[in-house]
Amino acid sequence: MVLLDQTALPDKVTHIVCSDEDRVAEAIRRLEVRGAPAIGAAAAFGLVLAARRLRALEPSEALFRAELLKAKQKLAQTRPTAVNLFWALERMWQLVESAQSPLASLVASLEAEALAIMAEDRALNKAISRQGAKLFAGQRIAVLTHCNAGALATCGQGTALGVIRDAFANGNIAAVYADETRPLLQGARLTAWELQLDGIPITLITDNMAAWVMKEKRVQAVIVGADRIAANGDTANKIGTYGLAVLAKAHGLPFYIAAPSTTFDFTLASGELIPIEERAPEEVRQVRGTVTAPKDVPVFNPAFDVTPAGLITGIITEFGVLQAPYDTAIETLQKQLKTGRKTNEDVDKCNCQSGAGA
Amino acid sequence: MVLLDQTALPDKVTHIVCSDEDRVAEAIRRLEVRGAPAIGAAAAFGLVLAARRLRALEPSEALFRAELLKAKQKLAQTRPTAVNLFWALERMWQLVESAQSPLASLVASLEAEALAIMAEDRALNKAISRQGAKLFAGQRIAVLTHCNAGALATCGQGTALGVIRDAFANGNIAAVYADETRPLLQGARLTAWELQLDGIPITLITDNMAAWVMKEKRVQAVIVGADRIAANGDTANKIGTYGLAVLAKAHGLPFYIAAPSTTFDFTLASGELIPIEERAPEEVRQVRGTVTAPKDVPVFNPAFDVTPAGLITGIITEFGVLQAPYDTAIETLQKQLKTGRKTNEDVDKCNCQSGAGA
Repeated sequence: MVLLDQTALPDKVTHIVCSDEDRVAEAIRRLEVRGAPAIGAAAAFGLVLAARRLRALEPSEALFRAELLKAKQKLAQTRPTAVNLFWALERMWQLVESAQSPLASLVASLEAEALAIMAEDRALNKAISRQGAKLFAGQRIAVLTHCNAGALATCGQGTALGVIRDAFANGNIAAVYADETRPLLQGARLTAWELQLDGIPITLITDNMAAWVMKEKRVQAVIVGADRIAANGDTANKIGTYGLAVLAKAHGLPFYIAAPSTTFDFTLASGELIPIEERAPEEVRQVRGTVTAPKDVPVFNPAFDVTPAGLITGIITEFGVLQAPYDTAIETLQKQLKTGRKTNEDVDKCNCQSGAGA
Repeated sequence: MVLLDQTALPDKVTHIVCSDEDRVAEAIRRLEVRGAPAIGAAAAFGLVLAARRLRALEPSEALFRAELLKAKQKLAQTRPTAVNLFWALERMWQLVESAQSPLASLVASLEAEALAIMAEDRALNKAISRQGAKLFAGQRIAVLTHCNAGALATCGQGTALGVIRDAFANGNIAAVYADETRPLLQGARLTAWELQLDGIPITLITDNMAAWVMKEKRVQAVIVGADRIAANGDTANKIGTYGLAVLAKAHGLPFYIAAPSTTFDFTLASGELIPIEERAPEEVRQVRGTVTAPKDVPVFNPAFDVTPAGLITGIITEFGVLQAPYDTAIETLQKQLKTGRKTNEDVDKCNCQSGAGA
């Protein structure tokens, strides 16, 4: 399994070869692969690598399952906030639970399922992009985005950046402002790089310039991705998102979340229950190895924050744009998922039929 | 004239020897010396260096004045936003305008005036600190600050950090959160360093964490410095200040500006008239020489923003804490200045007599 090393971008395009689940877990922990949907797919392939490795040892079926469970737990313990990680691992695990012998066919099934997760995410991206782009039809505006919810965060063209890509292709987006997104600079390193490659006009700002960009009317909307959405619409996303939502409201700007149904956690009643990862202080005291602060200064480094549903204008999903009241909209989404819209074709079909505001 | 090189902090404590006004201008432009009051004092001493250099050439008085005017203009053209720069140069220039021969005594007068500006700023810091600390009497709270409005930005103990120092000494401040303040990291490099040296509990965050820190009720007030305050109270300060003011209001937190009367520009009716410096894109594309973005990505890099008076709870000056309506409060401040409260002793006296809310 080969991953693009996102920590080396934009100055170096290098790849990481993962031959076992340990290296995949390490890549997730180090943010060599990041972005909620991409983490989910990476974890699924991590489990495939574990299954292959274990199968080669010719274990008993019981031992195989016990060891594979350990691999699953290792992959699950990498990062706590993005729910796609747990969603993908549980989906893979259902195969293990229901699988018949022989093991060889289970390993093949796991591989097929991981490939399906990847292919479906690509289709979800397309559907989200089309749903979201409808919001900007007939306009010609500039938008602000935060962190990276693009191709580098997913298996396809991205969620927030997917919407931006489609809306740009439709002629509805004139410019994009990207927050650099400290501490790990996903906006500066990844979003700027992705959008430049696509020829989409991008202007980079530091995070603390977003309010002034709004005040000066340089942007007319904000659109970001998500790491976990609770049943009431409260949304965990990269630290800084909550502040942008407050600022957008103060400036009368719409604030959109773009995320697939795989990012919803229907088991959590509200955002207060979402676990927020706190990362190492060195991330704040340094920038890519360069010292920026006294070496022992105490740091608060939450990797995510939670935006209350009340600040969100719409949540763009593959089924359409959810709007308040989010609890009922998300209940409907959950029912739609249960009716079995799972494959690429289904998503594509449902997308063509449903409209914004569903 | 010796300046502490602030661009090298916190990892290196090095000094710059300025032997002429060109080097002083360069130091201001490069932010080797920064902070509105410190820039004012540095420019005053820059003019002294120019006067000494020109005097040694034994020019005619007319030539001396013409050349000194050029030096003044060079110093004035370094940075456009902080008004203390122009205030200090104009104050120095009044001596030149009114001076009698011989030139030797003018040069001595200029030197005395620059020393007076420095000494007065130290006294202003003390007075502001005492006025501001009264606001927190009887409390025990945590405060958030942005950029550096401390000893490194002034000739004394600082404005915002001066207030924090006095309030901490009084037992009213339990903790300080400091925004790192991209792009040039004055919060991470300077404020964290200063407060650590003083043993004040400091927690460093990235700028985009401020909203979450407020949401989690980790701070109960925001206090920052200023670069220029218009006659209606609109305040230019380091980029990011405006966003903090909007966020403070949304969270019901008081938002204070701490600044000496020398930071007021009574000639500007409102903040829209304050010139905002836009600096080089490399500041955003790099952090202390380390690349953080595609090398040619377009950047918007305003060094300051303007916070409307309506978002400001109080402006802490040496005369007391100004409150809305700011236009009348600032008119009163201007009258107080005209009655001649200029020397250290006067400021100290007026401070002891006046109360908060003046």
